[in-house]
Amino acid sequence: MAVSETDIALAERLADAAGAAIRPRFRADYGLETKDDASPVTLADREAEEAMRRLIIAERPMDGIHGEEFGVREGSSGRQWVLDPIDGTRAFIAGRPIFGTLIALVDKGWPVLGIIDQPILKERWVGVVGRPTLFNGVPAATRRCRDVKDALLATTSPALFTDDQLHAFEHLDAGVRSTVLGGDCYNYGAVASGWLDIVVEAGLKLHDFAALVPVVEGAGGRMCDWAGDPLHADSIGEVIAAGDPARVEEILETLACRGH
Amino acid sequence: MAVSETDIALAERLADAAGAAIRPRFRADYGLETKDDASPVTLADREAEEAMRRLIIAERPMDGIHGEEFGVREGSSGRQWVLDPIDGTRAFIAGRPIFGTLIALVDKGWPVLGIIDQPILKERWVGVVGRPTLFNGVPAATRRCRDVKDALLATTSPALFTDDQLHAFEHLDAGVRSTVLGGDCYNYGAVASGWLDIVVEAGLKLHDFAALVPVVEGAGGRMCDWAGDPLHADSIGEVIAAGDPARVEEILETLACRGH
Repeated sequence: MAVSETDIALAERLADAAGAAIRPRFRADYGLETKDDASPVTLADREAEEAMRRLIIAERPMDGIHGEEFGVREGSSGRQWVLDPIDGTRAFIAGRPIFGTLIALVDKGWPVLGIIDQPILKERWVGVVGRPTLFNGVPAATRRCRDVKDALLATTSPALFTDDQLHAFEHLDAGVRSTVLGGDCYNYGAVASGWLDIVVEAGLKLHDFAALVPVVEGAGGRMCDWAGDPLHADSIGEVIAAGDPARVEEILETLACRGH
Repeated sequence: MAVSETDIALAERLADAAGAAIRPRFRADYGLETKDDASPVTLADREAEEAMRRLIIAERPMDGIHGEEFGVREGSSGRQWVLDPIDGTRAFIAGRPIFGTLIALVDKGWPVLGIIDQPILKERWVGVVGRPTLFNGVPAATRRCRDVKDALLATTSPALFTDDQLHAFEHLDAGVRSTVLGGDCYNYGAVASGWLDIVVEAGLKLHDFAALVPVVEGAGGRMCDWAGDPLHADSIGEVIAAGDPARVEEILETLACRGH
């Protein structure tokens, strides 16, 4: 499926609508609750997703919707809008302006368009298959990383790993130049812009990773799972983003130590 | 020692000078090197500290200077300017605008003035003993936290803890509502502004913690070491910041499990 200009324009309007819902609740009355999985959710998450769903239902009634907070609405077009209104709710409630709204268009399970939007800083990465990723309208490019030992690595929280995954991550962590924690989806924007070299995470859901793929790959990077396979709606949520695709094999080999 | 208006004005000018040195190198050519302790340092760190030292030497030749990058310059006034040009160098190089410049005035070992400055977002917390902390010129206030189990907790990285400290931290972590990693000095500004409830860290040096104390305490919070004692130039770098002073005893009791 080709992504059309109107698809991109709609995705940008979704990000605008989410941002308008989120901004008034940042560092303000955000109505915190705890979900069944113990993760936090706020009125800002809910209102932002509702605003995006309303737009999609009005303009693309045949497309499916898969949102973090309000679940799946089946469609008939084979296309699905995958929404995470606030990726990094903990960062949001902590007053850090580095959370993000994630919007993906997924075609038969494959992410073909992705937006990472930071509504407080008004920073936006837009990735579309076959096109260069744009950061605030300007092409973004990942950076070369000649050796994993020179890499700047990020992961949001080691607590998201199982014991085996943590063992593998620590093996990678021990071999890089520096590792930074926190960051959520902002880390993947940072890879796309050439500020970070590698992000390795696990336990991500489709709404956490779908939007990231076109952003990172359209900037020259590569995303895959921990087996090296491309990310798809059925992926189990083990995610690698490498700014320099030439480093992926070494990352995979290092992570393959788990369970040993 | 009373902090004078000219002390505060000088501290603000130091922050301005550091920011002017840092901004052009954010997401740009920052000249990364690795220090003996394996932590990263950049030209931005060095140029920002040099800019601050020049101002202090010109205007306060009798005051001492204690900077992260260029060490100690002895003074004769009993007052010392304690400088961390970029607290959160990893965040800085990762393109996250939540690192900070830390400036403290320390009198006979006690922090009496502190600034946390975020030069990209132009956010600044100014704390002075006996005065309300200001965030961008407006009084900041910590929030009430009725129970540690409702708390939002932050720490930059569990890798900064020894095994005993990590054991104690995990005990606290298990009992709070939510924990967010990363953040560096920005977490303490967030406590002062009532966005976060607790920060617990260890391994901090004087330049990491001196500026935080007047900021958090002037906003109604409390800072102390893991024994409950106030932070002083001789503290070993185990740090607690609590937005609600009524929760400090419970935090201390929880952390006291280490080694058991």
